[in-house]
Amino acid sequence: MDGPGPTTVQLGPGAEFDRIRRAIAMGGALPTSVRVGPGDDAAVLEGGWVLSTDLSVEDVHFRRAWLSDREIGYRAAATALSDLAAMGASPVGAFVSVALPPDGSVNWDELQAGVVEALASVGAAVLGGDLAKSPGPLFVDVTVLGRTAWPVLRNGAEAGDEVWVTGCLGASAAAVRAWTEGNEPSAAARLAFARPIPRIAAACCLVEHKLVDALMDLSDGLAGDAAHMAAASEVKIVLQAGAIPVAQAAVDLFGQSEALQAALHGGEDYELLFVSGPGRVDPAYFMKRFNLELTHVGRVELGDGVWLEQPSGSVERLERGGFDHFGDLA
Amino acid sequence: MDGPGPTTVQLGPGAEFDRIRRAIAMGGALPTSVRVGPGDDAAVLEGGWVLSTDLSVEDVHFRRAWLSDREIGYRAAATALSDLAAMGASPVGAFVSVALPPDGSVNWDELQAGVVEALASVGAAVLGGDLAKSPGPLFVDVTVLGRTAWPVLRNGAEAGDEVWVTGCLGASAAAVRAWTEGNEPSAAARLAFARPIPRIAAACCLVEHKLVDALMDLSDGLAGDAAHMAAASEVKIVLQAGAIPVAQAAVDLFGQSEALQAALHGGEDYELLFVSGPGRVDPAYFMKRFNLELTHVGRVELGDGVWLEQPSGSVERLERGGFDHFGDLA
Repeated sequence: MDGPGPTTVQLGPGAEFDRIRRAIAMGGALPTSVRVGPGDDAAVLEGGWVLSTDLSVEDVHFRRAWLSDREIGYRAAATALSDLAAMGASPVGAFVSVALPPDGSVNWDELQAGVVEALASVGAAVLGGDLAKSPGPLFVDVTVLGRTAWPVLRNGAEAGDEVWVTGCLGASAAAVRAWTEGNEPSAAARLAFARPIPRIAAACCLVEHKLVDALMDLSDGLAGDAAHMAAASEVKIVLQAGAIPVAQAAVDLFGQSEALQAALHGGEDYELLFVSGPGRVDPAYFMKRFNLELTHVGRVELGDGVWLEQPSGSVERLERGGFDHFGDLA
Repeated sequence: MDGPGPTTVQLGPGAEFDRIRRAIAMGGALPTSVRVGPGDDAAVLEGGWVLSTDLSVEDVHFRRAWLSDREIGYRAAATALSDLAAMGASPVGAFVSVALPPDGSVNWDELQAGVVEALASVGAAVLGGDLAKSPGPLFVDVTVLGRTAWPVLRNGAEAGDEVWVTGCLGASAAAVRAWTEGNEPSAAARLAFARPIPRIAAACCLVEHKLVDALMDLSDGLAGDAAHMAAASEVKIVLQAGAIPVAQAAVDLFGQSEALQAALHGGEDYELLFVSGPGRVDPAYFMKRFNLELTHVGRVELGDGVWLEQPSGSVERLERGGFDHFGDLA
C-alpha cells in the first residue's frame, strides 16, 4: 500500500466501469479510516478489515431453471467470497439481503443453507441481512467481510513480472451456452457455474509467501480483468494464447478456437489472476497442497492494454467483448 | 456488552423474525472477531466496527410514482444509516448494490446522487457496491459501516427505566395511505417518507452522555419495535397512549384515533426508541442542540410484552399488526 491516505485504483474500459468511475468521482473524500476505497475488488479499512458486495439477479446472472435454490444461495455467496480471495483476505462473515418472489416458489431455507454452506467452507458465518418480498425476480445481494494483514491490490504489477492464473477457464461460459441453447451442460461445465470455489486458501498462501505483486479474481473474463490490472498498474499485459488453461468442458462444447474466446471473454470463472516476479512461483507446491493448477499465461511489459500473443509470434491488442457475456441474459 | 464471546439478541414475534431466528440458528458459531452477531440493529466487530444492511424494493418499500430517483437513493441510504444511529455508531461509509430496470427509466446518476447526499450529511462516503440490470423492479441494497467505542444494544432495558422516542410518529404511514388512495400526501407527510433523517448525532450524544440503557431505531412501528426491545431485554414495556408524539400530518389524514394506530403500527418512522434511568434525560438540551423533540412515552417494568396504558388507566397488551404496513405493497 502506498503512503498515507486512501488508495484509489484505476479501472479498465467498459460502460459498467464508466458508471463506477462516476460513482467514485461523486462519492467525495474518503474517511481516514478507509485504507482502500472503490475500484479494487474490495475496500480495506483500518484494522485490515476487507469488504465487498456482489449482487445476483434472477434472469440476469442465473436462471432458476438452471440451479437449485441451494445452489443459487451457494453461488451468490461463493462469488462474493471470491472478492475476498482477490485481496488475499480471510473471510469472517457476510450480510445477505434476499428479495423473494411472491409466489412462494423459492425455498428460502434451502437458499440460506446454500449461503451458509459456502460461508462455512471458508470459516465464515452469516452476520446479518435483510429479507423482503420481490414483485418479480429473485435477488440475492451478499456483502462479505474478511481480514488481512497485507491486502494485495491490482496495481502492483511491474514490467518483468510473470502473469499466472489458477484453475482452468471457460467452463462456466460453456454451461451458460448449453442452457441458453436448450441443452443440459456437461457435469463439469454445470459444476463450474453452479458451485464456483472461492480460491481463498490459495490466495492467502500466495500472499503469505509474498509471491504476488498484484492479485484479483476473474469474474468478467481473463481479457477484461487483465485490462483492469493493466490499467491499475499502468503496464502492458501480454497473454500467450497457447498457454491459457482452457477448460476441457469448454473445448468439448465450443471447439478449440471458440473455447479460447470463452476463456478470454466468457467470465464467471472465479479463478485468481496474479503477477509474480520471474521464477518465484512453484506450481507443483500448489498442486500438492491445494490440488490446484497454476498456469503461467503471460508477462508484464512497459506500455498499456492487454495483448494476445499467438504461438506464431504475432501479437494483437485485445478489445473488450467478442463473446456473448451471460450478464446480458435480461 | 456482556462478558467474552459474541452476543446474541432475542427478537420479538413475527413471521419475518421467525425467518431471521432460523437464519441465526443455521448460521453456526460466530468468529471470535465478531462481538455482536445477528438479531440487533447491526453487527459489531472487533475494533468497534458496526455493519448493517437495508434492502429497498420497488413496489414493496416504495413506488417510483411517489419519489424522484434522487429521493429513492437518499431514502435507501438514510434508512440503512438509521441502523447505525440505533447502535450509537458514527457512519464511515456504505456499499450500494443497485439493479436497474432495463427500460432506462431510472436515472442512475440521480439515484446515486441521493445516496451520496444522505451519506455526506453524516460524514460517510460510498466505499463500493455492485450494479446490475433488473428484469423487473428497481432494487437498492445498502450496507452501511460505522464505528463506535460503545455500541448500545436492545437488551439493556431494566425495570424502572423510562421509555423515550425522538421526533413524532405516523407521518410516513400517512403519506403511504394518501398515495395508495390516489391522493397527494401533505408536504409534511411526504417529507417524512421521502427524506427520513437518520438520528445519528442525537444517538451519539445520548451514548456519549451515557443516557441510554437500550437503544434501537423505529422501522416496524413503535409497538413492534418496543416488542423487540422487551424481548431482547426480558422486560415489560408499558407505553402511555396519551404521551405518544403522533405527527400532526397523521392526525390530519387519519383523525386522532387512527393516527395513534399509525404511530404504533405504521412503521418507517426512523426515529429512535431508547430507555434511560429515571430523570436523566433533559429534552430541552436536545431541542436546543439538535432541534429534536424527545418524548417520554412510557416505562419499563418486570414482565414481558408491550402494553398500552390509556389516560383512563386501563392497560391492554399490544399485539402485532392492526394497521396495514406498506411493506405489504406487493
